[in-house]
Amino acid sequence: MSETTIKIDLSKSPGEHDNIHNRWHPDIPMITTVEPGTELTLECMDWTGGQVRNNDSAEDVRDVDLSEVHYLTGPIGVKGAEPGDLLVVDILDLGAFENEQWGFNGMFAQENGGGFLTDLYPEARKSIWDFHGIYANSRHVPGVNFAGIMHPGLIGCLPSKELLEEWNRREQELIDTDPHRVPELATAPYAPTAHMGRMTGAEAKEAAAEAARTVPPREHGGNCDIKDLTKGSRVFFPVYVPEAGLSMGDLHFSQGDGEITFCGAIEMAGWIRVRVNLIKDGVRKYAVRNPIFQPSTLQPEYKQHLIFEGISVTDSGKQHYLDAHLAYRQACVNAIEYLKQFGYSGAQGYAILGTAPVQGHISGIVDIPNACATLFLPTEIFDFDINPTAEGPIKMAPADDIPTAPWKG
Amino acid sequence: MSETTIKIDLSKSPGEHDNIHNRWHPDIPMITTVEPGTELTLECMDWTGGQVRNNDSAEDVRDVDLSEVHYLTGPIGVKGAEPGDLLVVDILDLGAFENEQWGFNGMFAQENGGGFLTDLYPEARKSIWDFHGIYANSRHVPGVNFAGIMHPGLIGCLPSKELLEEWNRREQELIDTDPHRVPELATAPYAPTAHMGRMTGAEAKEAAAEAARTVPPREHGGNCDIKDLTKGSRVFFPVYVPEAGLSMGDLHFSQGDGEITFCGAIEMAGWIRVRVNLIKDGVRKYAVRNPIFQPSTLQPEYKQHLIFEGISVTDSGKQHYLDAHLAYRQACVNAIEYLKQFGYSGAQGYAILGTAPVQGHISGIVDIPNACATLFLPTEIFDFDINPTAEGPIKMAPADDIPTAPWKG
Amino acid sequence: MSETTIKIDLSKSPGEHDNIHNRWHPDIPMITTVEPGTELTLECMDWTGGQVRNNDSAEDVRDVDLSEVHYLTGPIGVKGAEPGDLLVVDILDLGAFENEQWGFNGMFAQENGGGFLTDLYPEARKSIWDFHGIYANSRHVPGVNFAGIMHPGLIGCLPSKELLEEWNRREQELIDTDPHRVPELATAPYAPTAHMGRMTGAEAKEAAAEAARTVPPREHGGNCDIKDLTKGSRVFFPVYVPEAGLSMGDLHFSQGDGEITFCGAIEMAGWIRVRVNLIKDGVRKYAVRNPIFQPSTLQPEYKQHLIFEGISVTDSGKQHYLDAHLAYRQACVNAIEYLKQFGYSGAQGYAILGTAPVQGHISGIVDIPNACATLFLPTEIFDFDINPTAEGPIKMAPADDIPTAPWKG
Amino acid sequence: MSETTIKIDLSKSPGEHDNIHNRWHPDIPMITTVEPGTELTLECMDWTGGQVRNNDSAEDVRDVDLSEVHYLTGPIGVKGAEPGDLLVVDILDLGAFENEQWGFNGMFAQENGGGFLTDLYPEARKSIWDFHGIYANSRHVPGVNFAGIMHPGLIGCLPSKELLEEWNRREQELIDTDPHRVPELATAPYAPTAHMGRMTGAEAKEAAAEAARTVPPREHGGNCDIKDLTKGSRVFFPVYVPEAGLSMGDLHFSQGDGEITFCGAIEMAGWIRVRVNLIKDGVRKYAVRNPIFQPSTLQPEYKQHLIFEGISVTDSGKQHYLDAHLAYRQACVNAIEYLKQFGYSGAQGYAILGTAPVQGHISGIVDIPNACATLFLPTEIFDFDINPTAEGPIKMAPADDIPTAPWKG
Repeated sequence: MSETTIKIDLSKSPGEHDNIHNRWHPDIPMITTVEPGTELTLECMDWTGGQVRNNDSAEDVRDVDLSEVHYLTGPIGVKGAEPGDLLVVDILDLGAFENEQWGFNGMFAQENGGGFLTDLYPEARKSIWDFHGIYANSRHVPGVNFAGIMHPGLIGCLPSKELLEEWNRREQELIDTDPHRVPELATAPYAPTAHMGRMTGAEAKEAAAEAARTVPPREHGGNCDIKDLTKGSRVFFPVYVPEAGLSMGDLHFSQGDGEITFCGAIEMAGWIRVRVNLIKDGVRKYAVRNPIFQPSTLQPEYKQHLIFEGISVTDSGKQHYLDAHLAYRQACVNAIEYLKQFGYSGAQGYAILGTAPVQGHISGIVDIPNACATLFLPTEIFDFDINPTAEGPIKMAPADDIPTAPWKG
Repeated sequence: MSETTIKIDLSKSPGEHDNIHNRWHPDIPMITTVEPGTELTLECMDWTGGQVRNNDSAEDVRDVDLSEVHYLTGPIGVKGAEPGDLLVVDILDLGAFENEQWGFNGMFAQENGGGFLTDLYPEARKSIWDFHGIYANSRHVPGVNFAGIMHPGLIGCLPSKELLEEWNRREQELIDTDPHRVPELATAPYAPTAHMGRMTGAEAKEAAAEAARTVPPREHGGNCDIKDLTKGSRVFFPVYVPEAGLSMGDLHFSQGDGEITFCGAIEMAGWIRVRVNLIKDGVRKYAVRNPIFQPSTLQPEYKQHLIFEGISVTDSGKQHYLDAHLAYRQACVNAIEYLKQFGYSGAQGYAILGTAPVQGHISGIVDIPNACATLFLPTEIFDFDINPTAEGPIKMAPADDIPTAPWKG
Repeated sequence: MSETTIKIDLSKSPGEHDNIHNRWHPDIPMITTVEPGTELTLECMDWTGGQVRNNDSAEDVRDVDLSEVHYLTGPIGVKGAEPGDLLVVDILDLGAFENEQWGFNGMFAQENGGGFLTDLYPEARKSIWDFHGIYANSRHVPGVNFAGIMHPGLIGCLPSKELLEEWNRREQELIDTDPHRVPELATAPYAPTAHMGRMTGAEAKEAAAEAARTVPPREHGGNCDIKDLTKGSRVFFPVYVPEAGLSMGDLHFSQGDGEITFCGAIEMAGWIRVRVNLIKDGVRKYAVRNPIFQPSTLQPEYKQHLIFEGISVTDSGKQHYLDAHLAYRQACVNAIEYLKQFGYSGAQGYAILGTAPVQGHISGIVDIPNACATLFLPTEIFDFDINPTAEGPIKMAPADDIPTAPWKG
Repeated sequence: MSETTIKIDLSKSPGEHDNIHNRWHPDIPMITTVEPGTELTLECMDWTGGQVRNNDSAEDVRDVDLSEVHYLTGPIGVKGAEPGDLLVVDILDLGAFENEQWGFNGMFAQENGGGFLTDLYPEARKSIWDFHGIYANSRHVPGVNFAGIMHPGLIGCLPSKELLEEWNRREQELIDTDPHRVPELATAPYAPTAHMGRMTGAEAKEAAAEAARTVPPREHGGNCDIKDLTKGSRVFFPVYVPEAGLSMGDLHFSQGDGEITFCGAIEMAGWIRVRVNLIKDGVRKYAVRNPIFQPSTLQPEYKQHLIFEGISVTDSGKQHYLDAHLAYRQACVNAIEYLKQFGYSGAQGYAILGTAPVQGHISGIVDIPNACATLFLPTEIFDFDINPTAEGPIKMAPADDIPTAPWKG
């Protein structure tokens, strides 16, 4: 078994590294090429490349430049990989750096990306989470303590030229339907802040102008934010370019289904150890369009939940047709309202749903006109009894709220 | 502990019973009134009231009259219950009748309700599932065997007059946006086939004209089709009318998240044992809008899954904005295409996703413009190895497909 | 699929049934013979054949005649089964009778069999447990409520003549080492109370004089009291006589590892549904000496435990060498002492360990001279917080103890 | 939160460290004293202090000097701890050193300690296990791959003078019953190889002559080898001396219940992160005699098992009375015989039971005269199907056996 380690230097800026990039493009050069069967350890910046600090001010979250994310480590070339193969990636382990045992959860300002409940929580906010071995807690959200399901929020292979063109075509079409929307409908290529890895000069400039942004999940995986992809998982990625070009980053200590706060999960810098292998011609053999995953044997097991339900009717009573997005929003709002009865602020409740291992299920998707979504909130993560009782909820001692930063405008 | 049993007679039609009903209306009379703490056993028809038979023809599924569902047992009055209370319902046990150890999974014709993938599978189909203790399998879908998570698909309390009016208002508004759509956007009150329980004469006629249909889940729970509500669960329902009026039915032997085949789950007749209690003023105490659930200690534990991903881009490449409905559809389609590589027909794959305990998660809901939904398919339910390997899939012996009935038109 | 049902009549005594027996002997006639693949439903008496009642006196437990247990339903013949085959038994489902939703846990008097802690609890005691769907609780042990892992305590095939002789030889040898011990070391054949099923006359009398008693687990399985053999399990039994001769009974609603109270578990009458199949020559193929089991997908999942440890040193400080029996005893005693700090009597604690799904693990068995055994007590089964805190335990309101019956002597 | 790190240097011998010790004695000086609430990271040698190497010879295992184990890091003083308190230890995380991603499993020669099955496997053997993130596999035991439940095999507080005297008294009594037995019944104090930490000179010499050896688990915990004490667990230890004096070591990557190979588990050097707190007067409050544990939320979940059963009858047919040690031995032997049908050597099977997360349960402990023990073997850890089928077992390609070293004599 051969091994490789890709190191970064957190004291330097992303731009000073040539083994990271923040756009998707077929021509980004491999930073190393390895044999199938190799185990690699990749160090990763947090998704913002160090824009957010461990302090009690939300100003850095408010000021995040979303054109400068996500900083990915890679791409890794795999010998023998060809378009149409499946790249088998075993996520062997991952963790925070020994001296960086913390992460952040942010809510972006509505003017700068927003989040799932940006209409209710339009201001920038930030909570800091400290890691204690497998557990995390936050000085900004008291009474909560949970084991993280650590995972890479973003992982995938480089797109082919054709796939990149398709992405740009369809996303631009969507943007064109409402080009001045705040927040925007999608993010178009943007060259000025592109980091194209080892590409340089005119070639880099040209590629940057068409390279895909990293925010959405796409066919290749990418920013899929699947909270279950933890150590011990296996992923089958479609290969689109020779040698595959695997990149990853956006490490999360923990995240709830949906990553509803957008910035999002408990974001951290850290390292990830993977092993790569190939299934030749696997895309055809298994009719693969998006990556396929096998979850890990090792996951925190929360067995006691409160399940909140949402249906596709707005707060003002407007009926939508089988809208799972709205139904999940209502399940989230219901859970937050419930948490408020125990003394949490709405923003704290929102942060809990974004960071703790809550599950979001599409429970009913055919019973016209209402979709039914359910949010599973693990009750063991609370220091106190959060279940309904005949006596009613007991308010916790009031705590300071999560730091907020008003919009600059 | 007092106990009560509500019996039905499967040899008689729903209309011959006065302890069942198929509409929601505040004035449907209680069939019995019990003290808090009482345990009740309620027998229930299958949701169609016996329209579907254990045979190899899909004609009965094709011909189901959707205005004649769901047949619910109740309403049960609970002494002392008042609007604003929470009705605490412990689902103690449920099962099929000893001599009716089977259920059905149907796909409705596009002309008669359709289903989640009705554009791909527009014809009526039916598979029959035999129960072997805790397990089910189907002569129409070979190679699959799983333990059911038995649950009531539909359960809830009678709405108040005001709530009923609100339902009718908002659903009619939606219907009015496209009144001739096939399948329809929502189902309006329809008196001719209403079964109003013990209401009779002019009063029943008048109520039937405004009584809500049973298909959608709503604030009171209703047809929420939450596959996890199995024996051992506890549910907290809002009370809207004096004595609450709890009704239930639509028993499922097993269902996948979303109940994507619409008819839907493995549908069965059977019995359910519940205990009722009250939390006075619980709606206000806990800020409850939709029911809250606590899942059971006792659930089948499938730990090995294949996870399929879908994003909110259509097959023809149109980009949608954070559309979880579309993303889940694509995850389902991806899973079905995968199953086809092992020899299943598309309809068989569709049936597996509708009946087996698959999970549907909203994994990413903020990464513009793509929602990311994931479908967790338990791999232990297959008689053969369904995981990807370097050798590629091994086709099972070809099997007869699920019975289909072409539309009559 | 063919099906068979073996019925009993609880209003009649065991002796009035010819489809039950209470001894092991190769010549007990089959009560029915079925094809491989058949599903059978067998009704079973409780293990004492109805000697214990649902009341608040322990006199019936004190007076149980241990030569009249266990009453087993069977033997079932399986066509084609030959010595050396493996009989594959799927435990499809089991339950209490609809009108007998209760069970008992007894502690035998030291003079009449005793139990694991008979030196500490020498008197006969009895607690009654009521079933509420999947849950049980007891008016004699307040504050505890758990989902049962229902299972047959006793199941296995008829021994061959040679195997029976071997059993009798080795057990008599042990008895001979201390023939007057109370309680006795083992139970020798005893004809007067033998129920030999359909054997009659001289043949029955002769067989009864050599037939094995049912208390110990042996090579064929028998009274193995494995609490995990619940609905959904599969068992591979060695076959010793033509047609196998499968019998079962001693149904338990729930039991802790070790069945430490001896009478033991939550004992109930009820029914069990099984399917039988064969692996020809399986004993040789798999080198099988004792039955092999596959547990069920469906089991209650208690994830939060307190783990108590015991080592092989007696209360008076005598060191034993790697004695797992003593180590487990000390773990049990430690757990009971702990429970007493919360207000339980010692006997109530003993009953909890005998009935609830506690796990008993052999944690260390090589670290001379101490064996280390651990007892896993699920904490979710208590109505109150049973975990250690800085504040110390809060005593529950004092409750009446478990009914006791002093020895008659 | 204050933090402390205790470092060791693997390039130096245990004797060159003054922050480790290999005996239990009340007067061993604290290497540091911390406030309650402190988080500590302790580096630990493997239990033999580096006597065993990553190679293909078993000679080092054969030659291990058992008087030179276990090398423990500590003792840690906790301010304010007094005899009678409970020391609350949160095991936050643990792991192998980044450059030492391997461990060993040894079987000692019968002449040098032996193991649980030393009569069957009397020679010294060794298998090396490589770590791949959360997984381990061995070049000496092909076809097996599992996620480790990493834990400290040995952890506890210093005994008081009185407790130490009691240990010495009772263990010497046992030794005196058969002082020349091979392997010995227990290990008496032995000064020549004692490492007394920071004690020096005459004081150390005197203490070494009475200090307890580390092999057995005792009241304080010690070498309890509980495989479930993994990251995320909490332990409540009795305190016997002022400042408690917590030491730990003997880290295991994984172990089966019983640690049947004695040397034993997958042994590794590494680090462990703990947090310490106090429950004042907790021993009395909770009637604690041995440590109490709370397991972790995060554990590998193996759900599919084959369960092997053993009863207390020897291979030659001698009946023992409720002997759980013998019953578990027979369950182990049955499992190994089964594994041999798939091509494993007996020693490989023995190694699998010693290293993989197998469970050993005391299933029946009252059914005279047979104890029933069960061994739960997770089937997902095998690369091939290990379940019984009608076709019989398929032999794997023959592999080289585990390295063996004949006894020197």
